[in-house]
Amino acid sequence: MATRSNTPRRGKMVNGFDPSTTGTLDKRTRDFVERRAHLLGPAYRLFYADPVEFVRAHDVLMYDADGNEYLDAYNNVVSVGHGNPHVVEAVHAQMQTLCTHTRYMHEGILNFAEKLLGSFEDNIGHMMLTCTGSEANDLALRMAKHHTGNKGIIVTSEAYHGNSDLSASFSPSLGENAPLGTWVRRVPAPDTYRASANDMGTWLAGEVSKQVHDLQRRGEGVAAFVVDSLFSSDGVFAHDHPILKPAVDVVREAGGLFVADEVQCGFARSGSHIWGYQRHDVVPDIITMGKPMGNGYPVAGVAMRPNVVEAFGNDMRYFNTFGGNTVAVAAANATFDVIKGQNLLHNSAQVGAMLKAGVESLARSDERIGDVRGAGLYLGVEMVSNRATKTPDSKLALGLVNAMRAKRVLISATGFNANVLKIRPPLTFTPAHVDRFLSALESALRESR
Amino acid sequence: MATRSNTPRRGKMVNGFDPSTTGTLDKRTRDFVERRAHLLGPAYRLFYADPVEFVRAHDVLMYDADGNEYLDAYNNVVSVGHGNPHVVEAVHAQMQTLCTHTRYMHEGILNFAEKLLGSFEDNIGHMMLTCTGSEANDLALRMAKHHTGNKGIIVTSEAYHGNSDLSASFSPSLGENAPLGTWVRRVPAPDTYRASANDMGTWLAGEVSKQVHDLQRRGEGVAAFVVDSLFSSDGVFAHDHPILKPAVDVVREAGGLFVADEVQCGFARSGSHIWGYQRHDVVPDIITMGKPMGNGYPVAGVAMRPNVVEAFGNDMRYFNTFGGNTVAVAAANATFDVIKGQNLLHNSAQVGAMLKAGVESLARSDERIGDVRGAGLYLGVEMVSNRATKTPDSKLALGLVNAMRAKRVLISATGFNANVLKIRPPLTFTPAHVDRFLSALESALRESR
Repeated sequence: MATRSNTPRRGKMVNGFDPSTTGTLDKRTRDFVERRAHLLGPAYRLFYADPVEFVRAHDVLMYDADGNEYLDAYNNVVSVGHGNPHVVEAVHAQMQTLCTHTRYMHEGILNFAEKLLGSFEDNIGHMMLTCTGSEANDLALRMAKHHTGNKGIIVTSEAYHGNSDLSASFSPSLGENAPLGTWVRRVPAPDTYRASANDMGTWLAGEVSKQVHDLQRRGEGVAAFVVDSLFSSDGVFAHDHPILKPAVDVVREAGGLFVADEVQCGFARSGSHIWGYQRHDVVPDIITMGKPMGNGYPVAGVAMRPNVVEAFGNDMRYFNTFGGNTVAVAAANATFDVIKGQNLLHNSAQVGAMLKAGVESLARSDERIGDVRGAGLYLGVEMVSNRATKTPDSKLALGLVNAMRAKRVLISATGFNANVLKIRPPLTFTPAHVDRFLSALESALRESR
Repeated sequence: MATRSNTPRRGKMVNGFDPSTTGTLDKRTRDFVERRAHLLGPAYRLFYADPVEFVRAHDVLMYDADGNEYLDAYNNVVSVGHGNPHVVEAVHAQMQTLCTHTRYMHEGILNFAEKLLGSFEDNIGHMMLTCTGSEANDLALRMAKHHTGNKGIIVTSEAYHGNSDLSASFSPSLGENAPLGTWVRRVPAPDTYRASANDMGTWLAGEVSKQVHDLQRRGEGVAAFVVDSLFSSDGVFAHDHPILKPAVDVVREAGGLFVADEVQCGFARSGSHIWGYQRHDVVPDIITMGKPMGNGYPVAGVAMRPNVVEAFGNDMRYFNTFGGNTVAVAAANATFDVIKGQNLLHNSAQVGAMLKAGVESLARSDERIGDVRGAGLYLGVEMVSNRATKTPDSKLALGLVNAMRAKRVLISATGFNANVLKIRPPLTFTPAHVDRFLSALESALRESR
């Protein structure tokens, strides 16, 4: 496992506003924060030491109430750009025409299913729609449990897969106070920065195998191994060659399924493939997707090998009132068309490479940057207090996140120690945006010395 | 419990299309049904023996591809009318301006929270937003479990509360093949048609008490008693005086919470109050809402007494990427404004009473109608083969549902025996629509003799 700092932040949130500092805010923000706590209660969190209010946005730019412009290098949901007119108008037209559910026939969902399924390998035969990534992961595991007859779930140590009772039970990044299921087992993330294994695939398979064995000893068996192939909440690890197959083989031999959680890494984010798992040259049993699917419209889904849903579908049915409604489909269809039509996969690769090269260049003259990694337009930049010992520096990372916010550039942090800068702008990011980003990061680094 | 017919329909769906009859459909429908099964798999269901395709809709009218007009007496999601321009334009304007999540400050959600919370009793202090009613019920129970330290859940025998792993575990109406949680207990619905109890409140409290005791004996304790106060999937029971308080007292004495599931009965549906539970003169600990909240836009939510979320919110946070995003709030806000501005509560009461009186009038000359019940624009019409024995006639009920579809009027069926016609049109239903509905029902009844 990764070196652990002792910073007590479990049950808290990386880059979350700390309500005990409300008194230090300007009056408008303080009033807002207090009114918000009064109405929405304690479960909501705001970003940043100094929370930010937005009133409008366009493409990769967001604006506060005073008209100040922010560069959005964080929001992966609006992957084809804030307010993308193609998506906005598709939703508007469909809302005016018909907004109804999937128990009536409508061609929209079938045409979209054909298009989406065409982006997977041939043995991924069915698509089902939900409203959120949490619902997609929850449904995937309901199917996996029903299909396998097993209950056990294996995830990486800092994984996040959702907010439903079941998906939260296998989301250790929610913190020590959020109960993990007794049927949940964790393996260390394949950490490209710290791991010493020569063959990371074999090593990961060994870790998974230990957990499979333990689940079997408890009589739970293994229902699924669930993986975000960019390991986003573990700290962003993008392997340059496939490492998942040996672990997937172990899981399948034990009767379990491989679930690829594409909520973060799917829809061209990784730059080289539409789907993140495709970087690992292995075909999942179930694929879950969400966040950018409708560019902000609540739509998410599950794709799968047909045999996985056969018993579940016949025994139980699945109906989601809004899932796959005609408008959700219009949003997803328009978003996917923009990704394809504007070749945002290519843009993600090209602009992502520029961004990475730029940060690597900063790292050459700043040894506090321990590691720069990622794929496409998803970057993790790990801050350390000592390059030799690789000691995590979460204070520096959070300081940089807040300094960037002051410079009106949006990023956040991730990983167990919250010391990894998380950079994942809309896929419409351009080289000019990269320049603007790098110049802000450079000055934030300089000022933080 | 209610008399049970032996019709095997568990794990199937009331009013679901039977794929084994695909060969009897016209070519266009057959092709569609086959393509749909090929792409979406076996978990999806279509309504009606002869599925219907819609291409557009306006207010309470829907249109198929040939331009045929259907009267919608079923879809409660579009409660302010299909394509309501106030909602459509509010969503469009907000989508063009800003679609982002709740970790930035935005006034929209606070203004809406104030408005919504104003419709509850004073001790309901916080609101949280999700995307679906399933997510709302799942979150409500996560909070209830965390707050009470207990796990047990008590529901009515044919309840439906959602499709997530947890909410499906306390949704017995999903059928025998959908596993109930070992921590879930059922009580018979308070059946106004068949129950013999003089005091239904005392009787229900006794039934709940037995289940509380059993949960305590297993060491689970009771986390919550979850009730849809119109008992929609149990067969639609609308009591004319409060009956829930004694049962709620029993649950609270045992340390459990009362969760009012308002997904079906909320937002003015019941005609006399904005919220269904208010007909029972008892204030819940948690209120969940969904379906009509955004008139089809995926938005749902939870409101609660502040103490219920205190530990949960501090220990765990809750973030829902799309839940409470600026557009979802615009949709919910506009829908609530229309309900208030057009006084649809009053319309629900007035037009609902006409509808009920009309069906009661048909019942006077047709003894196959065993019972007509409901509140506001939510009616249950129970079909029986014998009024004296009250023997359920599901074949007749499903025949009527399909006959109405042939006459281009949309309804469905509900209840354990699927013998209760389920009638719940958009709240913009007018007296002229009632006449059109009654004339179709009259002729469907006549032709079914």
